[in-house]
Amino acid sequence: MDIPPIPPFDQAAATAARSRQNRLTKPAGSLGRLEELAAQLAGICGRPQPWLADKVVILMAGDHGVVAEGVSAYPAAVTPQMVRNFARGGAAINVLARQAGARVVVVDVGVAADLADCDGVYQAKVAWGTANMARGPAMSREQVEAAGQVGLQVVAAELAAGANVVATGEMGIGNTTAAAAITAVLTGRPVSEVTGYGTGVDEAGRQRKMATIERALAANRPDPADPLDVLAKVGGLEIAGLVGVILGGAAQRRPVVLDGFITGAAALVAVALAPAARPYLIAAHQSAEPGHQAVLRHLGLQPLLQLDLRLGEGTGAVLAFHLLEAAIRTLGEMATFDEAGVSRKT
Amino acid sequence: MDIPPIPPFDQAAATAARSRQNRLTKPAGSLGRLEELAAQLAGICGRPQPWLADKVVILMAGDHGVVAEGVSAYPAAVTPQMVRNFARGGAAINVLARQAGARVVVVDVGVAADLADCDGVYQAKVAWGTANMARGPAMSREQVEAAGQVGLQVVAAELAAGANVVATGEMGIGNTTAAAAITAVLTGRPVSEVTGYGTGVDEAGRQRKMATIERALAANRPDPADPLDVLAKVGGLEIAGLVGVILGGAAQRRPVVLDGFITGAAALVAVALAPAARPYLIAAHQSAEPGHQAVLRHLGLQPLLQLDLRLGEGTGAVLAFHLLEAAIRTLGEMATFDEAGVSRKT
Repeated sequence: MDIPPIPPFDQAAATAARSRQNRLTKPAGSLGRLEELAAQLAGICGRPQPWLADKVVILMAGDHGVVAEGVSAYPAAVTPQMVRNFARGGAAINVLARQAGARVVVVDVGVAADLADCDGVYQAKVAWGTANMARGPAMSREQVEAAGQVGLQVVAAELAAGANVVATGEMGIGNTTAAAAITAVLTGRPVSEVTGYGTGVDEAGRQRKMATIERALAANRPDPADPLDVLAKVGGLEIAGLVGVILGGAAQRRPVVLDGFITGAAALVAVALAPAARPYLIAAHQSAEPGHQAVLRHLGLQPLLQLDLRLGEGTGAVLAFHLLEAAIRTLGEMATFDEAGVSRKT
Repeated sequence: MDIPPIPPFDQAAATAARSRQNRLTKPAGSLGRLEELAAQLAGICGRPQPWLADKVVILMAGDHGVVAEGVSAYPAAVTPQMVRNFARGGAAINVLARQAGARVVVVDVGVAADLADCDGVYQAKVAWGTANMARGPAMSREQVEAAGQVGLQVVAAELAAGANVVATGEMGIGNTTAAAAITAVLTGRPVSEVTGYGTGVDEAGRQRKMATIERALAANRPDPADPLDVLAKVGGLEIAGLVGVILGGAAQRRPVVLDGFITGAAALVAVALAPAARPYLIAAHQSAEPGHQAVLRHLGLQPLLQLDLRLGEGTGAVLAFHLLEAAIRTLGEMATFDEAGVSRKT
């Protein structure tokens, strides 16, 4: 993966947006987080009035060898089944993307099934799923690099085609286990704190999941100072792909909207590789998965929505598009005190 | 105000919606609050698949005599100035309603200025603002009844014209003082707990506001067991109008989306008058105004958004329309496990 240079956040554009906010016909600060968001989007895009007309959600799919340890409530066969569901437009992400006017780009970066016949899926399979991290590295360094490169290529193509905001999504049975392992290593939090019920295991399942992660960490000894080592040993192909998407989006000054726990784990890796990517990130929501809190705290991100979502696919990120649009529209379309002849604060 | 009969919430429709949720291609419950919301909307509309095509925000405007006590950061002249801004489409509510595809209906139920020339404003002035509640009742019982009747009439006309979801909004310099007084009386919480900075007074201003409310309560002795007495003595014309809107919406089985603190105070009165209205209410967001928490707790409502908004006008309510639509669309448009050939939980 060729880590691209990331330009600095444009403080002047953010300041210009804040200054306009204070001339609009509302009490100063009364649009709350939408005002901060508008300023952040201005700084990201490098213009006082940001514009997000063409929206895309890039959904990376991959399988996880660690599913053999019984860490998931669903069989691995669900990953390719859901990819076909995405391609037909029947999943939650399709519905919510239609509502938000966003394109869904589904990428097979590592599904353990043949999807070559599946129209509408970007074919970039690096491997048929990862190896079982409980017994050895999930991926080779070469596989991680290749999967990251897929993410960079896909996002570059989408941005070249006009997308000016990128939401991140994922599908991969078993991937909350990988995300929890990455989060434990990169945030230093204990496995018990960052491991949840995923798609719906019971408490015994969660205990099994924690024991599996502990075994994976003991077997692989990922190096917290080497983010790609962590990603290779206990990550996933779709997570590596998302790291590329995040870095490629930031490199082109586009807002990158994170979804939940899995895309958050990808962001941990991306920011460890390139700290300049951090200001380009927007946390769409706070997932019901407990590890997501550790991710957001570590990255210093405040989520826009708290709806107890735990579906993934990019669903929370696409929901947040409405708030990004609200932030931008109020900044651009509201009348100023002078224009409207409204008296200011006494 | 003729309090209309309110039909019971349709539990069977809500149960049918929940049952469909569990057949959709996602882990059970993984859409979190959107799933509850879809079930609530089904129960409100009385059909397993609710439909909210035609959206309206009813914005009641009125002035407050208590502004003479120095309780607001803005002069009372801002109320009619902002009504003109609404009519020209330059305010935050106009921008956000355009984004959400909602109509804005602005009602002059009690602005202390002549707005008869203002096209696009529903003319229903009951009085030129309220009297100063620090010295006596803000309104007569007749005025409250008349303002409530305006709300009932406006919402009935909008529903007859096709609206199937109603957001509530308001404009009235000084109305956080009235809302705090109503909230203190109807929830039993101390004035200090429910009084905030409104549009932006400083701490001295907040102390003055609290002292004013205490004087108003002492001077008027509103009877907590008589909601219209409370509304007349320490309320506002726009708040009374909103009580009518809320009751009229619930009576026609339409979801009533509350905005922030002021519309919440109106909901306190509405539910005290007609407890059957409660299941028809949706709390769009949690305002930065501290009294709003007391309102939501008293009504048992959980807000959908927490964005530190404190603008009013219906802005938070209209933002929440996107979430209502997301709840309804996922319920209606997602494929089921059987349709998509996706395996269920092991």
